Amino acid sequence: MKLKSFWVWSLALFLLAGKAWANSSISEDTQTCLECHEALTPGIVADWRESLHAQITPEEALKKAPLARRISTSQVPEDKKGVVVGCAECHTLNPDSHQDTFEHNGFRIHVVVTPKDCETCHPKEVKEYEHNLMSKAYRNLKNNPVYHGLVETSLGPQKLEKGRLVYLPSHPLTQADACFSCHGTKVEVKGLTSRDTPMGEMEFPVLSGWPNQGTGRINPDGSEGACTSCHPRHSFSIEIARKPYTCAQCHKGPDVPAYKVYVVSKHGNIFQSQGKQWNFKAVPWKVGEDFKAPTCATCHVSLLVDKDGAVIVERTHQMNDRNAWRLFGLIYAHPHPKESDTTIIKNKAGLSLPTELTGEPVTEFLIDKKEMKRRQTRMKRVCSACHATTWVEGFFTRLHKTIEITNQQTLAATQIVLMAWKEGLAQGLPSSIFDEAIEKMWVEQWLFYANSVRFASAMSGADYGVFANGRWFLNKNLQAMKDWVEFKRRTKKKD
Amino acid sequence: MKLKSFWVWSLALFLLAGKAWANSSISEDTQTCLECHEALTPGIVADWRESLHAQITPEEALKKAPLARRISTSQVPEDKKGVVVGCAECHTLNPDSHQDTFEHNGFRIHVVVTPKDCETCHPKEVKEYEHNLMSKAYRNLKNNPVYHGLVETSLGPQKLEKGRLVYLPSHPLTQADACFSCHGTKVEVKGLTSRDTPMGEMEFPVLSGWPNQGTGRINPDGSEGACTSCHPRHSFSIEIARKPYTCAQCHKGPDVPAYKVYVVSKHGNIFQSQGKQWNFKAVPWKVGEDFKAPTCATCHVSLLVDKDGAVIVERTHQMNDRNAWRLFGLIYAHPHPKESDTTIIKNKAGLSLPTELTGEPVTEFLIDKKEMKRRQTRMKRVCSACHATTWVEGFFTRLHKTIEITNQQTLAATQIVLMAWKEGLAQGLPSSIFDEAIEKMWVEQWLFYANSVRFASAMSGADYGVFANGRWFLNKNLQAMKDWVEFKRRTKKKD
Amino acid sequence: MKLKSFWVWSLALFLLAGKAWANSSISEDTQTCLECHEALTPGIVADWRESLHAQITPEEALKKAPLARRISTSQVPEDKKGVVVGCAECHTLNPDSHQDTFEHNGFRIHVVVTPKDCETCHPKEVKEYEHNLMSKAYRNLKNNPVYHGLVETSLGPQKLEKGRLVYLPSHPLTQADACFSCHGTKVEVKGLTSRDTPMGEMEFPVLSGWPNQGTGRINPDGSEGACTSCHPRHSFSIEIARKPYTCAQCHKGPDVPAYKVYVVSKHGNIFQSQGKQWNFKAVPWKVGEDFKAPTCATCHVSLLVDKDGAVIVERTHQMNDRNAWRLFGLIYAHPHPKESDTTIIKNKAGLSLPTELTGEPVTEFLIDKKEMKRRQTRMKRVCSACHATTWVEGFFTRLHKTIEITNQQTLAATQIVLMAWKEGLAQGLPSSIFDEAIEKMWVEQWLFYANSVRFASAMSGADYGVFANGRWFLNKNLQAMKDWVEFKRRTKKKD
Repeated sequence: MKLKSFWVWSLALFLLAGKAWANSSISEDTQTCLECHEALTPGIVADWRESLHAQITPEEALKKAPLARRISTSQVPEDKKGVVVGCAECHTLNPDSHQDTFEHNGFRIHVVVTPKDCETCHPKEVKEYEHNLMSKAYRNLKNNPVYHGLVETSLGPQKLEKGRLVYLPSHPLTQADACFSCHGTKVEVKGLTSRDTPMGEMEFPVLSGWPNQGTGRINPDGSEGACTSCHPRHSFSIEIARKPYTCAQCHKGPDVPAYKVYVVSKHGNIFQSQGKQWNFKAVPWKVGEDFKAPTCATCHVSLLVDKDGAVIVERTHQMNDRNAWRLFGLIYAHPHPKESDTTIIKNKAGLSLPTELTGEPVTEFLIDKKEMKRRQTRMKRVCSACHATTWVEGFFTRLHKTIEITNQQTLAATQIVLMAWKEGLAQGLPSSIFDEAIEKMWVEQWLFYANSVRFASAMSGADYGVFANGRWFLNKNLQAMKDWVEFKRRTKKKD
Repeated sequence: MKLKSFWVWSLALFLLAGKAWANSSISEDTQTCLECHEALTPGIVADWRESLHAQITPEEALKKAPLARRISTSQVPEDKKGVVVGCAECHTLNPDSHQDTFEHNGFRIHVVVTPKDCETCHPKEVKEYEHNLMSKAYRNLKNNPVYHGLVETSLGPQKLEKGRLVYLPSHPLTQADACFSCHGTKVEVKGLTSRDTPMGEMEFPVLSGWPNQGTGRINPDGSEGACTSCHPRHSFSIEIARKPYTCAQCHKGPDVPAYKVYVVSKHGNIFQSQGKQWNFKAVPWKVGEDFKAPTCATCHVSLLVDKDGAVIVERTHQMNDRNAWRLFGLIYAHPHPKESDTTIIKNKAGLSLPTELTGEPVTEFLIDKKEMKRRQTRMKRVCSACHATTWVEGFFTRLHKTIEITNQQTLAATQIVLMAWKEGLAQGLPSSIFDEAIEKMWVEQWLFYANSVRFASAMSGADYGVFANGRWFLNKNLQAMKDWVEFKRRTKKKD
Repeated sequence: MKLKSFWVWSLALFLLAGKAWANSSISEDTQTCLECHEALTPGIVADWRESLHAQITPEEALKKAPLARRISTSQVPEDKKGVVVGCAECHTLNPDSHQDTFEHNGFRIHVVVTPKDCETCHPKEVKEYEHNLMSKAYRNLKNNPVYHGLVETSLGPQKLEKGRLVYLPSHPLTQADACFSCHGTKVEVKGLTSRDTPMGEMEFPVLSGWPNQGTGRINPDGSEGACTSCHPRHSFSIEIARKPYTCAQCHKGPDVPAYKVYVVSKHGNIFQSQGKQWNFKAVPWKVGEDFKAPTCATCHVSLLVDKDGAVIVERTHQMNDRNAWRLFGLIYAHPHPKESDTTIIKNKAGLSLPTELTGEPVTEFLIDKKEMKRRQTRMKRVCSACHATTWVEGFFTRLHKTIEITNQQTLAATQIVLMAWKEGLAQGLPSSIFDEAIEKMWVEQWLFYANSVRFASAMSGADYGVFANGRWFLNKNLQAMKDWVEFKRRTKKKD
């Protein structure tokens, strides 16, 4: 009996010790946060508790095999090594560089965790992301006069004044609610405010442009981007980021119907049918074993290995690293810009556009044929994990023809607009090129229809190349533009 | 050995008794129904067998802890207490008040089970639902002359007569197939008919407006509503009602793109990615534990508790109980009507509209600022289960700006229509205000575009605020309306 | 001890034997394929390994009970009986009839596996599929001059020449990327090409129209169709084919919004909510037990049984076998054509259309009332597995009214086009009837709006009958067509 007793006590002690150790890996600071927030914001705390951040310390993470490792630094700050990544670890990082740092129960915390904070453990991903057009999505929209004109004439409400429609400027709250919801806002501290809380009166920073999780967000520490665009708070889940619902947040509308095209593709069909049995957490991601058809992340981001663990493609957070062509967003499809900051581009007309209005690429700012081939080679390696070369080559031949012909169809629309400008039926440059009816029709030619067709071609999305905002509309729209010009000519003669 | 034998026999008896008890909890009447219908309509019987109704008696249900209890009466009729809720329990309830009661194998059964029937066990839910605009969805559409005009000019087919388009009245079958599919039909008994069945010739009632599961259905017992709109037959599942697919049945089109906006929101992304691991059956519904991101029901209906079981918000079947503003369906967004029957509203022009045509709210029929605040406070309690106050306040500030500006953008469209009416280019009141081309463009301004933008704002649905029927179209449509007026002016001069 | 030892050894031998047998059921030829392709194309090999094809030999399959059997021949070639269906079994079948056969490491393999190959084990399905309109989807589009005109004016890019829009012919790569992506391409061998591979330089056939998995694909062995349209490579899963995502590949656009309508129907709601718990692999498919609400396949394809295993409906791969009416694709809804090859149809005007331009059906080529009734009876048997007759009859009454009225609404649009042709505002026959603005508006009347309304009616898809490309647009479009005619009249007078 005594012996038995000994073992029972030993086991109890061992379990208690284990429990103690488990607790001790949460930092004291984070423990303090949790004391209130577990009750105040139970949803996000529960989310975090199930996250990898709550389950592994950087020290343990560093011991993983290189391909399985998700931390990309080798030097974690000494005080963070042995604790899991909790509230305090992120929200009190770099307090001096954070304009939004405020005093909160004895801590200097900040609201907006930024790529500069995440960089502490994930420097490779942050660096790659900087080469991503998405990381400059705020800047490229706000600081490019041409594109800012598109924002203004899309969002600025029109008013009827003396029988004429007049644009009013767009409100900053509208901007944050619309284009900059995906592109990212500029988050700025506008002072402090007092609030009654369950813990008594407390002070909090007043933030403009908040909330926001846009990809090119300008943060209160001056950094650009939001890792939470794809890895949402507070699970920061790789699973969520790898599923297409994440990309669909911003890539589903008529201007970027990537998700819509994906779900009608064979790949999307298989994912929807069987994806729930796949392993979206495995790192590296094994083709055939962990998943059987690609999601967005598979082709554009993830580290893939074959059944023997050999690398098929490396992970990249520069999402265009496997894309030779920029298919959407601009007037004509063109080779990707060299730099993610596209405000530096100037075409012959002095506009920050990667092509002339008539389609010729501004080559000095765009990647060259060699780099295009390099990127396409990477993508083809992904395709080849399931498809024979004949298949893959046939696919890309079609895509390139689609790029060529949709660019021609955009040019035809541009020629009609140029005609309208020349005849004085609409006002062209230097006035806004997006504010009048004929110009908006022109915008839809490339922003909706040519884009859809190219996405359909790039992902085998059948009807998005024909009737679902596809080629049918490219032709129909040209005729409507032509009719509009005729109508205005007639009207003009009469005036 | 004898002892062992005794236990074996005891166990056997116990199991048999259990089995007998299990069977005895299905009423004899229902057992009779099942004898034929298990073979005749196997799908719904199987569905019911897995439902809670088939597994628990009202008596047992009443013993559950208050927050876990899903029955809301305390007095179940004596003869129903001890049996599970099966075919006969519902389909033979209140036979005298049911116009559709008919004799069927010795039973007086009715086809259409109604809220008045469900009220037997769920009176609180039925009462709350009566305060819900949806419960009057038939009446508010059919008995409001303005809105009935919209139905007629949407559904009534046009015919070319002597070179002119003329509206024909809409067919009742078309109405049932279109608007009233969601709003609910009027189900009426039109006599009896004989049919050959596997059981020989039998008589059944002939029902007009059937089948239908619209939210404001007028039932053969005079009641309004259909619980099956959201809790489909015959599982009457809380799981189904809590998932967004249920709401999407009616809230996905361009007029109410709630579901579309939800799925591109961060909330929708997380639900789609991880929702399959959540517990959609738990009552009460525990934030963070049972689910990690809200569905429609979370914000608008469900009883939520925190990790300690403390109530965050009470359950409500008045779906606007947490909504200060009515964002869609009407010409302008406005504070919610006080009463769910909106046919009682009259604006200055004598129309049953909650605002004037130029947007001013008809305040006497609408909730006041105090009630608006009360509702918003409830909603904010839901938000605050995951989000800090700064986040929540920032979010609502944007929503209120969106309401203000989209109302202005609708007003601009109204002014163009008023201009067209004044110049005789289209016929305004007292003629239909929805039947001509310019009026239909005006309808789309608020019914499609302003609605989309407001939903996008209310649920962070990015592109639905911009290019997906969003602000882009608010501006484009105004220009098209303006062009139409100019074209008609020109045409008119010539005639 | 000796005895124990004996058993251990016996078990070991038994397991080894089992293992050996398991291996031996993969043919030597397939084993050779796998040796390289397991590394080269790991995705599809893994997919195949989990497929039924990899797990059961035809011999074993033939032993299954008739209703559970998925092989439909009784005579499998002797050399294929005892091995699972692997790479070599399909890709080396019928080498002489395959234009795409080439020498590959000592094998005569072909790239494109066709229905004629699949017929070896599945002759019944292949035969049924031949009666399916989908099996002639290439031919019916390419060889019907009217419909080929629609292809050309949809895909052929327009060019601005001397101020006029002129159509250029569509490129074969565009065709393959657009309409023929779903309809199927013509896959032809255009010679051989050499490629460097990890195994050294090898020769491969050059294929035009490849890749493609369209339903009416013309294969290099002269056969029509692609089983992979619905049973994607290399799992050839019945589960995938039974889920609606498969049909959505081609039936989601504005011209065939079947999937869109399904997901907002009650059926679609329940599938999305609970479908992941259903058994999509069971053969036969048991109503109520294996699934609780229908998918596309349930109503149109699958073998259904009730809880006692009694057949409700037989399996069919003639997808219109339960459909009396052809609801979409053509100008007017009409009884289904008798033959799947619709190029044989000629109306009074000599056009390959199943109705006159004014809607009268060309009855000699269409199924008669008796056959229509037979098909509807089959469908009603499916409905009746869950719904009472009153419900089912009410449903079909509405559908038939919808067919009648949408045809009228198309006729009104046709009359406007006829008026435009007569007045010389547009060019009618023998010129293309799809190339001008007014004609495209007419096409949308039936191809988008009338189709949507009919799908909504056929599947209870609420808003697709009203605002989501529904009746709202049928009326609005007529007015826009009328305005266009007026505008052109005015313009014409001036010229």
